[in-house]
Amino acid sequence: MSKTPKPEQPKKDKHGKGLKRRDDPPPLRELLRIPVGKPVDLTAYDADGKPGGPADKAAGAAATSALGPALAGLQERLYAASTAGDRRRLLLVLQGMDTSGKGGTVKHVIGHFNPSGCRIHAFKAPTPEEKAHPFLWRISKALPQPGEIGIFDRSHYEDVLIGRVRELAPADEIEERYAEIDRFERSLADDGVTVVKVFLHVSYEEQRTRLLERLDNPEKHWKFNPGDIEERALWPAYQEAYEIALERCASERAPWFLVPADRKWYRNWAISTLLLEHLAELDPQYPRGDFDVAECRRRLLAQ
Amino acid sequence: MSKTPKPEQPKKDKHGKGLKRRDDPPPLRELLRIPVGKPVDLTAYDADGKPGGPADKAAGAAATSALGPALAGLQERLYAASTAGDRRRLLLVLQGMDTSGKGGTVKHVIGHFNPSGCRIHAFKAPTPEEKAHPFLWRISKALPQPGEIGIFDRSHYEDVLIGRVRELAPADEIEERYAEIDRFERSLADDGVTVVKVFLHVSYEEQRTRLLERLDNPEKHWKFNPGDIEERALWPAYQEAYEIALERCASERAPWFLVPADRKWYRNWAISTLLLEHLAELDPQYPRGDFDVAECRRRLLAQ
Repeated sequence: MSKTPKPEQPKKDKHGKGLKRRDDPPPLRELLRIPVGKPVDLTAYDADGKPGGPADKAAGAAATSALGPALAGLQERLYAASTAGDRRRLLLVLQGMDTSGKGGTVKHVIGHFNPSGCRIHAFKAPTPEEKAHPFLWRISKALPQPGEIGIFDRSHYEDVLIGRVRELAPADEIEERYAEIDRFERSLADDGVTVVKVFLHVSYEEQRTRLLERLDNPEKHWKFNPGDIEERALWPAYQEAYEIALERCASERAPWFLVPADRKWYRNWAISTLLLEHLAELDPQYPRGDFDVAECRRRLLAQ
Repeated sequence: MSKTPKPEQPKKDKHGKGLKRRDDPPPLRELLRIPVGKPVDLTAYDADGKPGGPADKAAGAAATSALGPALAGLQERLYAASTAGDRRRLLLVLQGMDTSGKGGTVKHVIGHFNPSGCRIHAFKAPTPEEKAHPFLWRISKALPQPGEIGIFDRSHYEDVLIGRVRELAPADEIEERYAEIDRFERSLADDGVTVVKVFLHVSYEEQRTRLLERLDNPEKHWKFNPGDIEERALWPAYQEAYEIALERCASERAPWFLVPADRKWYRNWAISTLLLEHLAELDPQYPRGDFDVAECRRRLLAQ
């Protein structure tokens, strides 16, 4: 064995993550988290920004792609742990105006994961059966099971967004819902669900561009509905409804993250990174087998 | 413009598929389909074979990867068509002995698709509630919706496989199930479901190798259960139960395909190709928008 002293290596913890150094950038979750208990002014956030992100599209796409194996590895460990009774799971809630990229996020970010461990639900206008139940009823049915990664494309927040803007329920009932949502999300956290709520912040101008793209490409007509133009006319009311929801329902245990969404590559990178940070913190472990390996080997080789 | 005559190009139809030429290989579905109405002898099929497939692992992985964009494109068209009332969808049924690669198929093949259009269900031992219902009850609840790609990791066939081998129901009830399955699958076909049933044919020796790999790698212990060894001891009874199921439940409208599964790369290539052939035959179309594009453009630009 060589006795030559090795150059000093940066210290690593047991999972290979570098120990925090003074010049490490802050985690993205700190950069993007909406402060708890403070009024929210969406005009103060740049939809075209790329806080903490790579320099440009090419670098962003490469960085996102590079996160894939780590995301898939953590997902497998989360799932494996659930087979031994670990109840933890993650729920990604995606909200944002039309064209903000909820569907694109599922396609490009959730595509990193093994699809068998993902439980994805896109919430549409409630059915008559859903309307006959409390608004959280259909949400509860779509929650991820232990070990799974759940993804909500729209969610219970619709009931304080379009519900508020379109006055789909009496005002006092809408008011009540913020507290209900808060209680509901706390109960999820108590049950082992890491709730990651993402508001995809798209600008008014970028929305127009994206709607025009759908109109101009016949292969995207199926994504377009003239009703989208009427919704867009209510832009200020929706922005206000979002500000209220983001303020009242941001909590330490179920924070809101604002992801600038005018750049699709940044959106994909940022959400991939947020998921990675949360999964890494959970640090799920492969469970130890509770069987006699040598005995099992012997039996298999004798067969 | 140049007047130089171009070299003759192979003719293409409107979707860019080459027209059939005399020397085209037969579609993989013809190579792998189990003949209808004939006894099945699994020992006649080589689990290590690669019928119709690429020459080796590297070529196979490259070919499978190259199918990704076409699969994703067809899936998007299938989903888009459903938004205009097209009820068609595809259901991939995966069956095979332990370690035959059902989970690996979901990870590596279904990973080509947009996860939001996939409905994946892994059937485990039935719960008390499921046992209290007819065996097709839990199956019906997991079916894909129009436009979706459904994937069953195990299925209603378990009720004539482990059900038969372990005598989980009276013999006459098991006998009745083959006809019930046949009627059920016909009703699915009538409702627009393309049913693609795949038997992953793994050899006794390869199963031992894969079980030993799980034992030897602590990160795979969660996939191992000593009960797997007891199931393996019943190998001949399971092979017979498969032969009976494949014979009785192979129909023109819901055929069985036998995919040699000792080589994972061949399995991934073959199932990707089978899915592509079936989706290409469906040839789903982007629906035409039923709105006035010019009028919508004008309104958007005025906003």
